[in-house]
Amino acid sequence: MLILTGDIGGTNARVAIAEITQHTTSLYNEANFATADFSGPLDIVAHSIATAGIQPELISLGIAGPVRNQVGTATNLSWSFNARELEQHLNLPNVYILNDLEAIAWGISRLVPEDYLELHAGQPDPEGNISVIAIGTGLGKAGICRHTDQFHPFATEGGHADFAPATELEWELFKYLQQNYPHVSWERIVSGTGIPHILEFLVQYREGVLSQALQSGLAQGGGASLIAAAAKTCPLCAETMELFVSMFGREVGNHALNIMATGGIYLAGGIAPKILSQLQNPNFLATIAAKGRLHAIVHNMPVRVILNDQVALRGAALAGMAALAM
Amino acid sequence: MLILTGDIGGTNARVAIAEITQHTTSLYNEANFATADFSGPLDIVAHSIATAGIQPELISLGIAGPVRNQVGTATNLSWSFNARELEQHLNLPNVYILNDLEAIAWGISRLVPEDYLELHAGQPDPEGNISVIAIGTGLGKAGICRHTDQFHPFATEGGHADFAPATELEWELFKYLQQNYPHVSWERIVSGTGIPHILEFLVQYREGVLSQALQSGLAQGGGASLIAAAAKTCPLCAETMELFVSMFGREVGNHALNIMATGGIYLAGGIAPKILSQLQNPNFLATIAAKGRLHAIVHNMPVRVILNDQVALRGAALAGMAALAM
Repeated sequence: MLILTGDIGGTNARVAIAEITQHTTSLYNEANFATADFSGPLDIVAHSIATAGIQPELISLGIAGPVRNQVGTATNLSWSFNARELEQHLNLPNVYILNDLEAIAWGISRLVPEDYLELHAGQPDPEGNISVIAIGTGLGKAGICRHTDQFHPFATEGGHADFAPATELEWELFKYLQQNYPHVSWERIVSGTGIPHILEFLVQYREGVLSQALQSGLAQGGGASLIAAAAKTCPLCAETMELFVSMFGREVGNHALNIMATGGIYLAGGIAPKILSQLQNPNFLATIAAKGRLHAIVHNMPVRVILNDQVALRGAALAGMAALAM
Repeated sequence: MLILTGDIGGTNARVAIAEITQHTTSLYNEANFATADFSGPLDIVAHSIATAGIQPELISLGIAGPVRNQVGTATNLSWSFNARELEQHLNLPNVYILNDLEAIAWGISRLVPEDYLELHAGQPDPEGNISVIAIGTGLGKAGICRHTDQFHPFATEGGHADFAPATELEWELFKYLQQNYPHVSWERIVSGTGIPHILEFLVQYREGVLSQALQSGLAQGGGASLIAAAAKTCPLCAETMELFVSMFGREVGNHALNIMATGGIYLAGGIAPKILSQLQNPNFLATIAAKGRLHAIVHNMPVRVILNDQVALRGAALAGMAALAM
C-alpha cells in the first residue's frame, strides 16, 4: 500500500512515503518544508503529494492541535484540516488526520533501542500506561492507555493546562506573561515558543542586555535553538535554559502523574535531543520525581528520550492503517 | 455470586453486599465506619466481613491511593493493602484491590440520570475519553480511555501534580503551605484536607479571628464540612469556600485537558453534592473552560456531578467481577 505520511507542526511540516510490514516501519523520500510558505491545509497537502511524487492510497497526517471526527485545528497555525473535504478537493480515497502527539504515541509501539536514549531504567509496569511529552513549537502531551495486551494511544491538550509557578522567579515570569496572555498555560513557557518568552522576561527582570548578534538573530526569527546554542556565551541564555529544563522536569512529572505512567515516560520533539547533556544531569530526573508523597511512584517510571525524529511519521502511518482496517 | 464491595477512603470506610446483573448493580446491608478505629488493612477487612455477615466469594475494595500488582497504599492512611496476603490471612478465595477513583470510573458505565446532576450538557463526543475528579479527604483523579466501543477506566495520581497559583492571593497561599510541605500539590488545597488549609491561611493573611465555637469545632476534627456549613455566618469561611470553588474549577479544566475528556467530565466525592449551589453558579462552568485558545474544546465537554454516593461501591464490585472473568 502506498502511504503518504505527514507530520505538520506549528513551524515545519514533513512528509514521507511509508512502507509498513508486521514488524518494520520504513520511510522513503522524506521532505521538509516551512508551513509559513503555504496558504492553508489544501495547499500543504497538495504540495505534499506533488513532493512525494506518488498517487497515495492513504494519506495520514499528524497535526499539532486537537482533532475530532476527522476535523482538526492546528493550534499554532489556526488552520482547520477536514479529512473528508481534503478527500473531495484532491479526489483521493483516504485521508486520515490525527493529533501529532497521538502519532508519536503510535510510533512508540515500534521503537527499537537505537531510537531512544534511556535516562532512567526505573521499574516499569508491563501493563502500565505510558506518557508522552514533546516540545516542538508548542508543548504536546499524549497518553497510551494499556489494558492487558491492548495499547491505545490518545491525544491530550494538557499543554494548555495552567502553568504552576513554584519559585519567586517563576511567579514573576507568570505575571510578566499575564500582561500578554490572560491564560498562562504551560505551553507559553515550556515549549519552543516559550523559551524566547523566558529570555525576554529575564532580560527585563535582570535589567540585562543581549549582544547585537543575538538580538538580530532573535529578530530574524531565531528562537529556542538560537538561545540554546548561545547558552555558552550568554549568561541570560544559560539561565533561560536552566530555568526551562527545571520547569520541563516538573511538568514531565505532572504529566506522568496525570496519566499514571507506570509503563514509562517518553520525551519527544525536536528540542530534547539538542539538550541531552542537561537532561542527563541527575537534577533533571530528581526534578521529575519530586512529587512529595508520590516520589517513589514517579521514581519507578522509566524515562526515555526519543532520538529518532521519524517516530511521528512512522506513527501517523501506523495509525492511518489501523483506522482503515476498522 | 456473593460480593463484598468496599470503598476505603482516608477518613471513612464503607462496605456493602453487591448483586450485579447485566444491567443493574444493587447494594444491600451497607455499613460505614471510621478508619481511625482500625489498626490496619487486615483489621478493617476482617471487620468488614463480620459486618456484612456473609462469607463472600469475592471482596473488591476501592482504596484511596495507588495500586500496583494488587498491592495498594492508602495515601492518607499509610496502610498497605496486599490482596494475596489478605486472601491468605483471611482464608478467602478472591480479594481484589483497585484505586477508589478507578472504582468510581467503573461505576460511571452504569449511571442512570437520577444518579447525577448535569451542570452543562455540552456536545459530548460519544467516543471521547472521560475524566473523573473527586474530592474526599484527598483529591482523586481518574480517566476512562474510550476506543470504538471499549471503555477502560484507569486510576491516576494527578492530585499530587503541582498546584498552579494564578492570583496574588493564591501565590501567598502557596508560600504559606510551602512552610509545611516542600511539595505543594493540588491535593494540599483542593481537597477535604485542603479546605482547612485555605481557612488557616486566610485567618493569618487577613489577620482575622474565628468564633470560639468554630475554633473548638475545628479543634475537634471538624474540617471541610464544618467550614462549608459556617460560610453563611463566618466571612473567612465564605471566602475560603469561594476560593476553593474557583481553584477546583480551574483544576477540573486542567484534568479535562490532560485526559482530553471530550466524552465528559464527572465530579464526584462527598463535597461536591454539599456545595451544589456554588457549582451551579455559571462562574464555576466559566472557570472550568477558561483555558485560552482551548476554551471551545473544554466548553464542549459535558459536566456532571455524581449525586449517588454508592457509585464507588458499585464500581468496585463491577471491576472485581471483570478481573475475576479475565
